Amino acid sequence: MPTSTLTQFLTLAERMLGKQAILDSLPQRFPYERDANFMLATLPACVVLPSTTAQVQWIVKTCNQLGLSYTARGAGTGLSGGSLAVSEAGIIISFAKMNKLLEINPKEGCAKVQAGLVNAKLNTALAPHGLFYAPDPSSQSACTFGGNWAENAGGIHCAKYGVTTDHTLSLCWVTPQAEIVWSNAPKTVFAPNGLNIRQLLIGSEGTLGLLCEAWVKVLPKPTHVAVAFMAFSSLEAASQAVSAIIQAGINPAALELIDALTVQCVNKAFGVGLPETAQAVLLAELDAFHPEELAYLLTTLQSTIEPFTPLSVETATSPERITQLWKARKGAVASYGNISPAFYVMDPVIPRSKLAETLTEINAIAKRYDLVIANVFHAGDGNLHPHLMFEPTDVEQMERVKQASHEIMHLCVKVGGTLSGEHGIGLEKQGYLHDELSSASIGWMRAVQEAIAPEGLCNANKILPLKGFCSEGGHSHATPTGSSGGGRPLSPSGLASADLWI
Amino acid sequence: MPTSTLTQFLTLAERMLGKQAILDSLPQRFPYERDANFMLATLPACVVLPSTTAQVQWIVKTCNQLGLSYTARGAGTGLSGGSLAVSEAGIIISFAKMNKLLEINPKEGCAKVQAGLVNAKLNTALAPHGLFYAPDPSSQSACTFGGNWAENAGGIHCAKYGVTTDHTLSLCWVTPQAEIVWSNAPKTVFAPNGLNIRQLLIGSEGTLGLLCEAWVKVLPKPTHVAVAFMAFSSLEAASQAVSAIIQAGINPAALELIDALTVQCVNKAFGVGLPETAQAVLLAELDAFHPEELAYLLTTLQSTIEPFTPLSVETATSPERITQLWKARKGAVASYGNISPAFYVMDPVIPRSKLAETLTEINAIAKRYDLVIANVFHAGDGNLHPHLMFEPTDVEQMERVKQASHEIMHLCVKVGGTLSGEHGIGLEKQGYLHDELSSASIGWMRAVQEAIAPEGLCNANKILPLKGFCSEGGHSHATPTGSSGGGRPLSPSGLASADLWI
Repeated sequence: MPTSTLTQFLTLAERMLGKQAILDSLPQRFPYERDANFMLATLPACVVLPSTTAQVQWIVKTCNQLGLSYTARGAGTGLSGGSLAVSEAGIIISFAKMNKLLEINPKEGCAKVQAGLVNAKLNTALAPHGLFYAPDPSSQSACTFGGNWAENAGGIHCAKYGVTTDHTLSLCWVTPQAEIVWSNAPKTVFAPNGLNIRQLLIGSEGTLGLLCEAWVKVLPKPTHVAVAFMAFSSLEAASQAVSAIIQAGINPAALELIDALTVQCVNKAFGVGLPETAQAVLLAELDAFHPEELAYLLTTLQSTIEPFTPLSVETATSPERITQLWKARKGAVASYGNISPAFYVMDPVIPRSKLAETLTEINAIAKRYDLVIANVFHAGDGNLHPHLMFEPTDVEQMERVKQASHEIMHLCVKVGGTLSGEHGIGLEKQGYLHDELSSASIGWMRAVQEAIAPEGLCNANKILPLKGFCSEGGHSHATPTGSSGGGRPLSPSGLASADLWI
Repeated sequence: MPTSTLTQFLTLAERMLGKQAILDSLPQRFPYERDANFMLATLPACVVLPSTTAQVQWIVKTCNQLGLSYTARGAGTGLSGGSLAVSEAGIIISFAKMNKLLEINPKEGCAKVQAGLVNAKLNTALAPHGLFYAPDPSSQSACTFGGNWAENAGGIHCAKYGVTTDHTLSLCWVTPQAEIVWSNAPKTVFAPNGLNIRQLLIGSEGTLGLLCEAWVKVLPKPTHVAVAFMAFSSLEAASQAVSAIIQAGINPAALELIDALTVQCVNKAFGVGLPETAQAVLLAELDAFHPEELAYLLTTLQSTIEPFTPLSVETATSPERITQLWKARKGAVASYGNISPAFYVMDPVIPRSKLAETLTEINAIAKRYDLVIANVFHAGDGNLHPHLMFEPTDVEQMERVKQASHEIMHLCVKVGGTLSGEHGIGLEKQGYLHDELSSASIGWMRAVQEAIAPEGLCNANKILPLKGFCSEGGHSHATPTGSSGGGRPLSPSGLASADLWI
């Protein structure tokens, strides 16, 4: 980009948005170079922080006039490069100032939020009303609604309650042509007419325009909660128990699996006291509106898992013990810090009936590549999270991590799964999309993308494989964007900050 | 259309599909002139009945070559003209022969169906597995999956379980360019990547191509069911009870409202014995996997509605009495036969908190136009079904029905609602879409439609308002398509067959 174009943008932006809404020095831009994926980094040309949807509209209009690429960014907790500038000439539009909870309507069960609002803050505000917003990504204390919409975020409680797309009523959208448009009637009922633009926008990873506000669904919060920890002597038994629990209609609010290595890590880190001989521990959260209902669910859970001869079962209903037990799940990732300085986390989804077979194969892959892989994940919906441990300075080991992750991705698609449940495709996995989807499917996605964003400036060259790009041979991991100047992969020696996301 | 083009198509089709797959005589075509909407009729040029997706592909390819418009049709139970030929030169593609249940996978909770399979037949096949498919439109004993996908069908149990879009995993689609494409990986997990084409196709009313097969989600069927009938002395009390039930987290499988006039009709028709003084009766179905859970739900329901002083409450758990009570709801529409030879049914959705106010206003509209309007509807999700009674030979009354329905539509949008919950826009309501959506929203829907179906042959000129068409003044009801030669509205004297759908 000619410097004069950027200078021109900065001059106009300063006049329109004010100096405090522009970050253009190197130290100011540096924190926006990455998201939570260690492989990718792109230093943006500048960062702008609009305060209103009208300012977002102005920014898009000006970028169009000057031919500047732009990318929306929330909290930067994404794991697939979705919020990285599309090139070093690209602009980041940060939603940090558009962080308001605009309205709560308890009667209709909905709330109006801005894109920059932190997910957990809505729940804090809803608590006094006895309500909650269901999608709860692990990063919910930091991540924002805008990012949740972009990635169609899931979370621990999505096994029962569904993902972001199930809880978004209507979206206010600045289109790539700088129009402000509500996807459907900005209303509170869940029956929009016409074509389903709302569902198309959610999960489009910021490539179809900028999502600024939305009406979201909020639900009555169950008043009684219990957590059960069930240890099993084999992955097979734990996996069969998962299927049996779902088939019994228990519908747990959360159903998570912790593998043997993770058991050791959380015991060591938090003294949770899980059985060390367990090959897998299931954590089920049950929720209800009445103690009798909860008691019934717990009894049914116990009788359902009995045939799979658990090593131990602990159930807790006191808030203190529940918090402590949840630590084994929520602190699992932090506990890996005791065994490795860094890891690479994956996000494939597989059919539930393939859990045991897939985890066994992942263990074999770990052995083959001489790697340590720990698993802690959403078993209820088959969303795996293999964590591949590595030492950031070990270049040769990094290469093995890449090869192993590559094999795991292929394995999961082969057993009938998909590449990503909630972390997105972004830059990281776009080279793999041909594994999951036919060329015709991808072609149609591209046709829709080009119809909505023909300018090619709106977070371009993300999600879909680059044109003419094919992953056959599969050595595309995290390096597909070189030709467009975007998403520069780091050399292993550039991983100094990898410990940030442990 | 020059006759030679049709002749050419028929010659080719006979060679490719066989004579028995073509209906071209007037008596053969006549049953395809209408769906269940009494206002609209278009006699198709011919009807073809493919047996395979490859045959559907051939038909679309041939239509493209010859410039013939085509429209998919399932059972013809639609209420908005979606399955009518786009003009008298248009071809109907009937899915009657593609009616197979291809696979049930109880372990993964999914099934593979063809577009022509009747909705209820899947449930019959699932019953021995203890499973069910949730969306249950009232027409489920006749309507097919293809129509359900086109209209994003709801149903009585959708208050708890969600609509068609929530239960469809992936769709096999013959595009307007005659490609066979799966919307996403034809797999069993619910986490497709890339852009959400699947959700875009569902509810697109057959305008984006032909949906031929799908994987759908099936759920464990609750083993214990109870039904409660609660009579109230005012609409206000019943409406408040609806909100309270939702807020109490009871999550009824169904929550229906029957108004005073309907109470009289069903009492007379079936001797159900509902209190004649009731202004509104709520019907709640509760479902559970254990008797204790069900007992708890019933107790909670009763204590929740107490503050609204019901006139009477009857709960039933025996299958016989449940069937009898459901008759009051499911037979309501048939019972209107005792008070009127015909009616016009509407389908707006309103915020739950506006139930009483909207129903009161609908009663006032009825009075103003000297019409009889009965209401029986899905209160749990605010999906109204006003039934406007009329005598088909009374031209002047028909005009009042049109005017009143027009006012009701405006009213529902004004209180924050939408035009249609489950019956679709089709030809019938496309002139009203400007009431619900901004021109910009509609413009984007059109851009997507034109990107996917630029040929303008695939069920064209449905859903979206015709270009340059604006409903201001609002006298467009059911007559917007004259200019394109499609969806010919009937004069009232043409309503001889209206009693077919009472």
